[in-house]
Amino acid sequence: MATTGATANFEEIHSLVASLPGPDRQAADQVRAREHELIKPPGALGRLEDLAEWLATWQGCHPPRIVRARVAVFAGNHGVAKHGVSAYPSTVTAQMVKNFQTGGAAVNQLCALMDAELNVYEMALDQPTGDILSEPAMSEEECARSLSYGMMAVEDGLDVVCLGEMGIANTTSAAALCLALFGGTAQDWTGPGTGVAGSQLDLKTTVVGDAVKLHAPFLENPLEILRHLGGHELAAIVGAIIAARMARVPVILDGYASTAAAAVVHKLVDGGLDHVVVGHLSAEPAHARLLEQIGKKPILDLGMRLGEASGAVLALSLLRSAAACHGGMATFAEAGVSEKT
Amino acid sequence: MATTGATANFEEIHSLVASLPGPDRQAADQVRAREHELIKPPGALGRLEDLAEWLATWQGCHPPRIVRARVAVFAGNHGVAKHGVSAYPSTVTAQMVKNFQTGGAAVNQLCALMDAELNVYEMALDQPTGDILSEPAMSEEECARSLSYGMMAVEDGLDVVCLGEMGIANTTSAAALCLALFGGTAQDWTGPGTGVAGSQLDLKTTVVGDAVKLHAPFLENPLEILRHLGGHELAAIVGAIIAARMARVPVILDGYASTAAAAVVHKLVDGGLDHVVVGHLSAEPAHARLLEQIGKKPILDLGMRLGEASGAVLALSLLRSAAACHGGMATFAEAGVSEKT
Repeated sequence: MATTGATANFEEIHSLVASLPGPDRQAADQVRAREHELIKPPGALGRLEDLAEWLATWQGCHPPRIVRARVAVFAGNHGVAKHGVSAYPSTVTAQMVKNFQTGGAAVNQLCALMDAELNVYEMALDQPTGDILSEPAMSEEECARSLSYGMMAVEDGLDVVCLGEMGIANTTSAAALCLALFGGTAQDWTGPGTGVAGSQLDLKTTVVGDAVKLHAPFLENPLEILRHLGGHELAAIVGAIIAARMARVPVILDGYASTAAAAVVHKLVDGGLDHVVVGHLSAEPAHARLLEQIGKKPILDLGMRLGEASGAVLALSLLRSAAACHGGMATFAEAGVSEKT
Repeated sequence: MATTGATANFEEIHSLVASLPGPDRQAADQVRAREHELIKPPGALGRLEDLAEWLATWQGCHPPRIVRARVAVFAGNHGVAKHGVSAYPSTVTAQMVKNFQTGGAAVNQLCALMDAELNVYEMALDQPTGDILSEPAMSEEECARSLSYGMMAVEDGLDVVCLGEMGIANTTSAAALCLALFGGTAQDWTGPGTGVAGSQLDLKTTVVGDAVKLHAPFLENPLEILRHLGGHELAAIVGAIIAARMARVPVILDGYASTAAAAVVHKLVDGGLDHVVVGHLSAEPAHARLLEQIGKKPILDLGMRLGEASGAVLALSLLRSAAACHGGMATFAEAGVSEKT
């Protein structure tokens, strides 16, 4: 994994999230004022109106605009994969990264269609995380390095960033993260992922429960939970979400694994995900439960469960639509149309 | 209203719908065969996979593609508007048509974003339909002319057509159509439309119930229901749906008024809407009930209630995504990626 610049430690991350920038209320007010004058019955564009306001609020400008959209897909491997918790072998992570690079994946087609730049971040695929059934997934240094790596994926000048992941066995890590962050049972948070069922799903559920039990004494804060149970790509998503807030870049999240990473930020600081929307409801059953915990309503519900940011990129077209309608529609006065009687 | 060519009568429409072309099962088989080889867990693209199959089935070719997309917005006026059933005066229909022509409406922004051609069909706005509280909305000749006009909006060579409408008071007509087609009560089918509430909504509901009662003796078939209670733009949508089936052009419907028109086709012939998807669930409460009646699951649910094809055009980007993923993704063999263990 190529990293440049200083790597933050957990203390620095904690200070950073304690001082995240807040909403731009002036931009939000400007959206509401203009929205009211646009040539349509009040509220008739439904969620598009909310999304326009949200975009402006977190871009910190009016009108909101999406010209430069980046899609960041982080790929990592997981030591826990050796227990057979996934329908695919770990080698598939690197094969899929190659597929992203040669343009053959779903996310490539979607980025081309949506005019979004695709950056794939390959995170030491030959050095998987520790097997969470016997050791922490990462040392503090490794976890902080992955966080920093994710931070570097977002910079000023982007209008929006879509975050996604690829990592065989990472719905096992995601389930363990959720169980440690929110409680409940291993069953609550464990699902088919790429497609396990029956006794293999039972095994996966047992692995999730056992891993959380093993590390329970050390799970004193969200970053420790991330370090013990997460993965490189999940830590990178945490970093990217934080960096996006600093850089005033609104975030569109993908599915279950990405949202589980985001939940770490939710637990780190109140309102830490206010600059984040969830692109779609994954078919992974625990995603709905997780969204309830973090108070997010997904934009799309298409029964998808692919990861690789695919659901986030689909939602990008709706964000763009929201910005285009808000910015481009005429007002009643401009169009000479009668207002409501 | 400018019409060219012959105008069909109801008898001709009945023969036409009795001989609609069926699905292209070979194209559907080709989608399923390829879908299985694409580099993703089986089913992981969820509804996008179903939409790719549906597109190919009704385009009659594989792979499905959306290059040329047309958005057809039909505008008509309604005699019943004089009873104050809408939040806006009838003059707004023509003002909005002008707004479509000058590029200031939501649908203009969305068509530009989605690279879709927008055709607005202005239907004798100075000659509203008859007031359905005292007379049929249209004569058979007028209704057939509007049907024919809608038919001319769809031709061979389009890859998909989005159908929408604009017409002050047309949710009153839509509610009356639904009540006559599916039964129930006037309350079941009447909602705020552009934003009526309280006593104005009560009045609208009474108008819907009274109109259906008045015409009850004459509502012997779906075309007579359309003629007595519908509108020019709703009849045009019926015609466009039928013409699209003949021309193998899949249809994306917009909201409540468009779907009410489509319900006429549903009642005319079994499977008459198999080449149609519904772009979004409208915030108009009766839309959900109507979709249940015609057995359609909307693609989006964004709380929109604007009409003018806005929800259909948004869904276009998901259809395009479905086609792009299906056509452009690599197969496991091409990418050298391990299949499921």
